[in-house]
Amino acid sequence: MYPNDGFRELERQECLRLLAQVPVGRIVHTRQALPAVLPVNFCLDGDGAVLLRTSAASELVRAVDGVVVAFEADEVDSAAHAGWSVVVTGSARVVTDPAEHARLVRTGPRSWVPSPEEVFIRIEPELVTGRELVGGRSLYGVDLAH
Amino acid sequence: MYPNDGFRELERQECLRLLAQVPVGRIVHTRQALPAVLPVNFCLDGDGAVLLRTSAASELVRAVDGVVVAFEADEVDSAAHAGWSVVVTGSARVVTDPAEHARLVRTGPRSWVPSPEEVFIRIEPELVTGRELVGGRSLYGVDLAH
Repeated sequence: MYPNDGFRELERQECLRLLAQVPVGRIVHTRQALPAVLPVNFCLDGDGAVLLRTSAASELVRAVDGVVVAFEADEVDSAAHAGWSVVVTGSARVVTDPAEHARLVRTGPRSWVPSPEEVFIRIEPELVTGRELVGGRSLYGVDLAH
Repeated sequence: MYPNDGFRELERQECLRLLAQVPVGRIVHTRQALPAVLPVNFCLDGDGAVLLRTSAASELVRAVDGVVVAFEADEVDSAAHAGWSVVVTGSARVVTDPAEHARLVRTGPRSWVPSPEEVFIRIEPELVTGRELVGGRSLYGVDLAH
């Protein structure tokens, strides 16, 4: 977070509550030594881990498996100059345990682009930070998740 | 871009046209050796450079001045499973030339959280890439910018 810049820091539970209300976030990692950003649909596991579903053959899997990544989601009302942003930073790994995979097939995110062989990527919620724009004072307190 | 994953790559001009239609994107950089992501309002300069406006005292300025960053914007329709994402990768620098600063005060982005001393950050459009989700075949060709 960047203090003293017109934003209010959000608590971890507040962050997870907001994250659970949006379908799409962005996974941030490094690709060929450059920052890479990819929007993906996701859901949260019971413990706050971010769950993605993608093709086992995707470059994303090779790029993030075993790597510390950031996962960002936000909702910004550009007319009201209000919004929030949450970032989960942690290790990403492909779910290899058959029982966990089977559970996620039932309860995890759906694929927008189904492929023959899909895997789940789990991002551990090691660091969960968030900020709410409070520059729009008149809107302070409005539930920005709606 | 990640080929063969259900997305269509976008041409540079197509990317810049889409970027020009959204008010908010996300600047991606490294902070304390971890990936950092920050939503910001922006506009494009005539040459496709991304222009941000922030407090001269902000940590963002110290974090990105002179650094290669990624700037991402997207529009995703989670109901239609359709959307686009554009990433501009290039060097970020604080605009120090008085004439350029004066021009940007007139024509550049407005601050959502005005501060006494503001600076403009310019991200050079060294690499401009984009992708459109074409998994939702029935929506292929729809103008996703609306």
